[in-house]
Amino acid sequence: MGKTNQTDRPSILVVNDDGITAPGIRVLIEEMETLGDVVVVAPEGAQSGMGHAITIGKPLRIDRVDIYEGVQMYKSSGTPVDCVKLAVNKVFKGRKPDICVSGINHGLNNSINILYSGTMSAAVEGAIEGIPSIGFSYDDFDYDADFSGCRPYVRAITEQVLKNGLPKGSLLNVNFPKVAKMKGIKICRQANAKWAEEFDERTDPYKRYYYWLTGVFKLEDRGEDTDVWALKNGYASIVPVQFDMTAHHVIPELNSWSFNVGD
Amino acid sequence: MGKTNQTDRPSILVVNDDGITAPGIRVLIEEMETLGDVVVVAPEGAQSGMGHAITIGKPLRIDRVDIYEGVQMYKSSGTPVDCVKLAVNKVFKGRKPDICVSGINHGLNNSINILYSGTMSAAVEGAIEGIPSIGFSYDDFDYDADFSGCRPYVRAITEQVLKNGLPKGSLLNVNFPKVAKMKGIKICRQANAKWAEEFDERTDPYKRYYYWLTGVFKLEDRGEDTDVWALKNGYASIVPVQFDMTAHHVIPELNSWSFNVGD
Repeated sequence: MGKTNQTDRPSILVVNDDGITAPGIRVLIEEMETLGDVVVVAPEGAQSGMGHAITIGKPLRIDRVDIYEGVQMYKSSGTPVDCVKLAVNKVFKGRKPDICVSGINHGLNNSINILYSGTMSAAVEGAIEGIPSIGFSYDDFDYDADFSGCRPYVRAITEQVLKNGLPKGSLLNVNFPKVAKMKGIKICRQANAKWAEEFDERTDPYKRYYYWLTGVFKLEDRGEDTDVWALKNGYASIVPVQFDMTAHHVIPELNSWSFNVGD
Repeated sequence: MGKTNQTDRPSILVVNDDGITAPGIRVLIEEMETLGDVVVVAPEGAQSGMGHAITIGKPLRIDRVDIYEGVQMYKSSGTPVDCVKLAVNKVFKGRKPDICVSGINHGLNNSINILYSGTMSAAVEGAIEGIPSIGFSYDDFDYDADFSGCRPYVRAITEQVLKNGLPKGSLLNVNFPKVAKMKGIKICRQANAKWAEEFDERTDPYKRYYYWLTGVFKLEDRGEDTDVWALKNGYASIVPVQFDMTAHHVIPELNSWSFNVGD
């Protein structure tokens, strides 16, 4: 992977949550190198399920590493969101990358999973910083996962975002199904679903209980315009995401309540 | 704080992110005991900034503790979101509490802070579980913070939610300003803002750099219908929040793009 130094090439920030040595980020780096100049800032270890966590109770490290020849790479002790903050402030030093791509995550981040996902939270943080941002995830947790089917999609979607930009306050959540050949792309809404948690209860050598978090994905949505539907039917799903979490439609109802406090 | 056992009293789950010994959760427990039967499941230590993180790489502990007389309390090794999952599954055992309240957080969770906040993520998780949920936060980080002005508001807002419920998929983000006397309540939208990060760079005894995350809150919103405006003007702010993060208004634009992949 040779780095060019053409200054008219877009600058691309690559992050993830599976850690800087994960196969998925390697695929993303390779594809991004065909499109622009790549800078990688990623967690030194796995940070799955970290959501939008930031590190405020302890200091952060960021150190240069040379894993792939010619690629500017840094590993950090922080969360995926910390990595984006460190990239913008300590690596790009205020100059913004043209795009921020996160992933490719080993495992889907469709539907409600966006809330728990470090991959998507890194992309959200990129968007908060005003950088067009995309999170990519693939339905295969295996270390030897075959990402070849995802590659042209990753490139095509990134090219479109580089060309068109994204509306302020929005980013893309892209998920790929594990199928022999994807049928194309569906623009979707986030499916309504939840995890029905089950805790795997065990006993330690000192006779005390401990629990492993497990769960079953419960779809509560029959819509055919959702990411779950698209993935199940062999399509790559793209959900445009926003980080304004206001439930605007609920405001009128709350304004009708009588709280009987204050003046 | 005496626990009654009247079965017609609502069951109230109390969580937080500052940890089970924080002054803010004590205030919340005291107020909730006037309204119903309280169960507390909270992190054993501080979990600020944990966002919607969950614990998947290591096991979880949950243990009964007796801190306040007559109150059913559990501390957990997990994140605020883990606490809600553990409460629903291991304490309530599938039977749902009538309401989930989180906080009172030491420090505001208005505007973009909702994304980073463990307090609000616990409330979001409550809402995902189908429980009417509220996060409370107060603009005072001090251990000796005086929450007395917040108390009637906490009670009044909780009573309204117990009485009216909340629309499916929504919850409340309540913030209190630090003023001599609040003027009342404003129903708001989440202000558009971001943190301009600055990293406090230091050198360890081995001559290696490390960084503390700091930042300056940058308001990018002149609206008078925002939580930032309400708090600045002496009102308690209530933002209705949703966890469907789809940017529905962006879907038509994305549908107009040509990706040239797939069939």
